[in-house]
Amino acid sequence: MPEVSPLAPRRFPTLPPVAGVRLAARACGVRYRGRVDVLLAELAPGTSVAGVFTRSTTAAAPVEWCRSALEGGRARAILVNSGNANAFTGRAGVESVRRTAAATAVILGCNPKEVFLASTGVIGEPLPDRRITARLLALRTALSERAWKAAAKAIMTTDTYPKAATRTAEIAGVPVTINGIAKGSGMIAPDMATTLAFVFTDARIPHTVLQPMLARTTERSFNAITVDGDTSTSDTLLACATGRAASHRQVRALRDPHLRDFRIKFDELVTDLAQQVVRDGEGASKFIIVAVSGAASARAARRIGLAIANSPLVKTAIAGEDANWGRIVMAVGKSGERADRDRLRIAIGGVPITADGMVVKDYDETPVARHMQGQEIEIEVDVGVGRGRATVWTCDLTHAYIDINGSYRS
Amino acid sequence: MPEVSPLAPRRFPTLPPVAGVRLAARACGVRYRGRVDVLLAELAPGTSVAGVFTRSTTAAAPVEWCRSALEGGRARAILVNSGNANAFTGRAGVESVRRTAAATAVILGCNPKEVFLASTGVIGEPLPDRRITARLLALRTALSERAWKAAAKAIMTTDTYPKAATRTAEIAGVPVTINGIAKGSGMIAPDMATTLAFVFTDARIPHTVLQPMLARTTERSFNAITVDGDTSTSDTLLACATGRAASHRQVRALRDPHLRDFRIKFDELVTDLAQQVVRDGEGASKFIIVAVSGAASARAARRIGLAIANSPLVKTAIAGEDANWGRIVMAVGKSGERADRDRLRIAIGGVPITADGMVVKDYDETPVARHMQGQEIEIEVDVGVGRGRATVWTCDLTHAYIDINGSYRS
Repeated sequence: MPEVSPLAPRRFPTLPPVAGVRLAARACGVRYRGRVDVLLAELAPGTSVAGVFTRSTTAAAPVEWCRSALEGGRARAILVNSGNANAFTGRAGVESVRRTAAATAVILGCNPKEVFLASTGVIGEPLPDRRITARLLALRTALSERAWKAAAKAIMTTDTYPKAATRTAEIAGVPVTINGIAKGSGMIAPDMATTLAFVFTDARIPHTVLQPMLARTTERSFNAITVDGDTSTSDTLLACATGRAASHRQVRALRDPHLRDFRIKFDELVTDLAQQVVRDGEGASKFIIVAVSGAASARAARRIGLAIANSPLVKTAIAGEDANWGRIVMAVGKSGERADRDRLRIAIGGVPITADGMVVKDYDETPVARHMQGQEIEIEVDVGVGRGRATVWTCDLTHAYIDINGSYRS
Repeated sequence: MPEVSPLAPRRFPTLPPVAGVRLAARACGVRYRGRVDVLLAELAPGTSVAGVFTRSTTAAAPVEWCRSALEGGRARAILVNSGNANAFTGRAGVESVRRTAAATAVILGCNPKEVFLASTGVIGEPLPDRRITARLLALRTALSERAWKAAAKAIMTTDTYPKAATRTAEIAGVPVTINGIAKGSGMIAPDMATTLAFVFTDARIPHTVLQPMLARTTERSFNAITVDGDTSTSDTLLACATGRAASHRQVRALRDPHLRDFRIKFDELVTDLAQQVVRDGEGASKFIIVAVSGAASARAARRIGLAIANSPLVKTAIAGEDANWGRIVMAVGKSGERADRDRLRIAIGGVPITADGMVVKDYDETPVARHMQGQEIEIEVDVGVGRGRATVWTCDLTHAYIDINGSYRS
């Protein structure tokens, strides 16, 4: 097991209960003995759910199950295991998903299509689902409103720390809570969906509002991070609204002004989780913020940001604390998006480095070199063609990434 | 300086003279003292030229010069320097290109637009072109038909060995020679153009035939390799035909049957150079062949092959000699191209691993593990939706890549 990432938050946050949500985590021996590897989240009747998933064409069986279950818009349970992704497992994988959902539905007295499943871990091995279903009764007995840290730990794979965040918001004067947990460290790439993350609120928000809210937030959060440019077959982000907070005004549309504070906090929380994934990027020693402006559109800005954030040459230079801005020029150029080379402006740590298609006059690298020695590296790039903006988060590429991934299965 | 790549060819090939081509290489102190860093190739009057270049939007000044010069279709000289890419150098870069071409034209008595330029090395620093032009007379004096190895060495940057290849072909019964040199090790990515490579033949092939021939070959050779997915601002591949071989029948069209043998040998030679670049991939310890079939089109097959070849998780697994085929499934899935997960077939080292959407029955990893210990790793993937095929070449991702790129500028 690797040590905890140097970029980890100082402590695990204290998550208050979310009315209508109970959690239990247990060691089921999915891959390793004695590791807590299964999480059951029970949701109160009437909970609405939204989800976004990997766009991989080799998506795992649980992802396909969730996509189909999401059509109902309601959730009574989320069951997650680590250790095995149940991906590329053919018919056996599909069957094991069905059996698991059916067993969970029996235990909780709901419809199987209200049970959402997620699996993360090794690809291509059959999921020993009976090890999980055999512990479902024990999991139900252990359900608690307070098991957030155990829940966040149960879904970890190569993560070095559990990831969670909490916010409170107001909807029409009524306070509501939002809690979220996430996992992820390697095989993290955007423009698809995310890794595993689960967000719970006691607000009353129908599926028809929750779904577009989640989709928009995802674009600016999980879809704006990358560790290694590799996209998981299991990416799943679910948001559940139990409606069990002190009753507030019905919310019917995403643009309802009463939803404004909630949306801000929801955005904050999901972005917080996404950034925690980057901070636990495999082998990461630096957290990198790439802010792109002046692009043809927000989408173009994000693609440019990701070209920079995914460049192994940029990432290794940062690992080596080398302010090698020429590689940023290269990455902008390869992105395929419109950029005006002769108006390109690059700043690192707030220090302007280029202007008018070349390095600024009397460029002094000293303050930039100092910034490169820190743990948070800020890169600003203006490509000089429009008003599109986007921020992307990533980490550096170090020897530890090679160590972790040259021997993952063994 | 790193040692020579373990994947390097055993020896530098013996290149015969190409009638109408003379070469000279000299140390001009572009970046380092005493390093041979400039190559002058003089071409006989009437030489036709073809070129393909980086599609980077931040292309270097010499690339823009060549693109414009190519309109004439004729070349009398190629001048190449290493140590400085003359990229992102603004107006100063454009001026230095003009001065260098003009000076070379004076020395060789030709039109500046018949002088092709290429620069490779650090990005963003003004090119000290006077150090080059001051040595032009000495370069002209040194011109020789035999300086191929010196030429190949002069254009190296992080390369650990000089790259060259030679073939003989027949056009309508007349033997002709094709020689080529190339450089490249890092910042190698396809779908754009290539790194620096120069091919010379004494065949008589007009620009109108040479250009489409080069473009087609590039797709299957330099556009089918990747080291790190990063695309250079300087990628340039030029092919020159002096027409000085014993006179052969005029060739007027790409589909001329007399050109058949030449095209095969030309393709072979350019592919050989491209593979040599991969074999010198920064930090490479394994040469990887990814053969994709069953795709919707050849283009789709290449994109799938590149998704596999660019995946850091696949590349680090191979560095660790781990037959982690689940990561190949992941990479196919993230490529965005159509693939039938339930018909996906993967083989490594000729051993079938998956069929029908899951691992084959009684899969025995022993022979695959043995194959992974070798220096050449063969990955075959059939995605089960069509007849598109492509082969892509890459190398593994090792600690040495991080070492090389965490300290390149220092």
